[in-house]
Amino acid sequence: MVRIRFQQNLDDLKEKLLVMAGMAEQAIQRAVEAYRVRDLSICDLVDRGEMAINRLEREIDQMALDLLAMEQPMAIDLRFILAVIKINADLERVGDSARAISDRVRELQAFPEAEMPIDIPRTANLASAMVRKALQAFIEGDAEVAESVLSMDDSVDKLNGAAHYTLLNLMKKEPAVAPQALNALMISRALERVADHATNIAEDVIFWVRGADVRHHMGAAAGNSKADGK
Amino acid sequence: MVRIRFQQNLDDLKEKLLVMAGMAEQAIQRAVEAYRVRDLSICDLVDRGEMAINRLEREIDQMALDLLAMEQPMAIDLRFILAVIKINADLERVGDSARAISDRVRELQAFPEAEMPIDIPRTANLASAMVRKALQAFIEGDAEVAESVLSMDDSVDKLNGAAHYTLLNLMKKEPAVAPQALNALMISRALERVADHATNIAEDVIFWVRGADVRHHMGAAAGNSKADGK
Repeated sequence: MVRIRFQQNLDDLKEKLLVMAGMAEQAIQRAVEAYRVRDLSICDLVDRGEMAINRLEREIDQMALDLLAMEQPMAIDLRFILAVIKINADLERVGDSARAISDRVRELQAFPEAEMPIDIPRTANLASAMVRKALQAFIEGDAEVAESVLSMDDSVDKLNGAAHYTLLNLMKKEPAVAPQALNALMISRALERVADHATNIAEDVIFWVRGADVRHHMGAAAGNSKADGK
Repeated sequence: MVRIRFQQNLDDLKEKLLVMAGMAEQAIQRAVEAYRVRDLSICDLVDRGEMAINRLEREIDQMALDLLAMEQPMAIDLRFILAVIKINADLERVGDSARAISDRVRELQAFPEAEMPIDIPRTANLASAMVRKALQAFIEGDAEVAESVLSMDDSVDKLNGAAHYTLLNLMKKEPAVAPQALNALMISRALERVADHATNIAEDVIFWVRGADVRHHMGAAAGNSKADGK
């Protein structure tokens, strides 16, 4: 009976983390949209969203803490709760990156618009897809999906590296647009950090799932815990 | 008896986290020294140190997990262990920032040396001091010391903001040194991130200590309250 309630609470925790992930992903999409159309009202949305994300982070931490305090969780549940705590922290920082992009968009208002020869939305889509996929790996407890996130990180690194190179050359050739180029470069970097957070999340999923595998291989003693609890 | 062993293990965990903090701080000092004297052999040290930091991070996580699994920890110990897990993750990322600086120093080898009108060592000293102070707050369980870290963060933000402004102007005026200026700017940013991690650590210390206070003021009942309601 207690065990069923515990399992229900674990499910609630998972649910809340998914809400958090959705908010973080939306924050990135909005921030990049704000950049694309130079719309400060979207920046406001990002900033308010970041505060909501921070609140939710604390709530999830508290839920995790309460769950750990409730009863003696089994090893597999412990790993799950620890994964939630770590993923939660990374999602909060995805929100910070969205905020950093929004700050850059505000700064850009002081300068004339200049076309930048890099594809920010493409990098953003990749980084967002990584966050989404890392969370999918988490929901499904799938280490292979998590590993695919790690390889996507290389693509984002390459895009960001290319953006860095392109924008640096632009600064050298057209110093007048250096501020706009630097802002674009910083936005590209912020997206690279989002990809890094997705990578961290994927690694935490692997840590959690591998724990599950260990449990699985060790047989019945631990083996019943997860499936049965439901 | 079991309780004494548990307490001993908590102390070991704390000890290990302090080693981790020392390594992270050393990594930053080395990376900035590598920048100051343009010495790639110091970069090698930073890179090897980063791998050691990553290994220690996993070790500490495993210790924390084992402690949570050992017995039903009390609320105050739970908060402590959670704080360790979160601080651990931040320290690992301080190591990443050191690595990022070391990467920049390597890149700089391709360009002629150019004097940059910003004070990187000063920013580095402040950021390092924040990490040290955040850990001191953790050892002493002192929320006031932790709060002083939060206010130091403003100083680092200002230094970084000023560096950004100075280097952007330099890029506009002397586009030939744009690569060197951009590298210096990225190093300044990396140090700002170190300060952000110190801030996160300080916030975790406050979360932990406040938990201790709440428990203390509410007496024995608090221990039960969480388990209730569920």
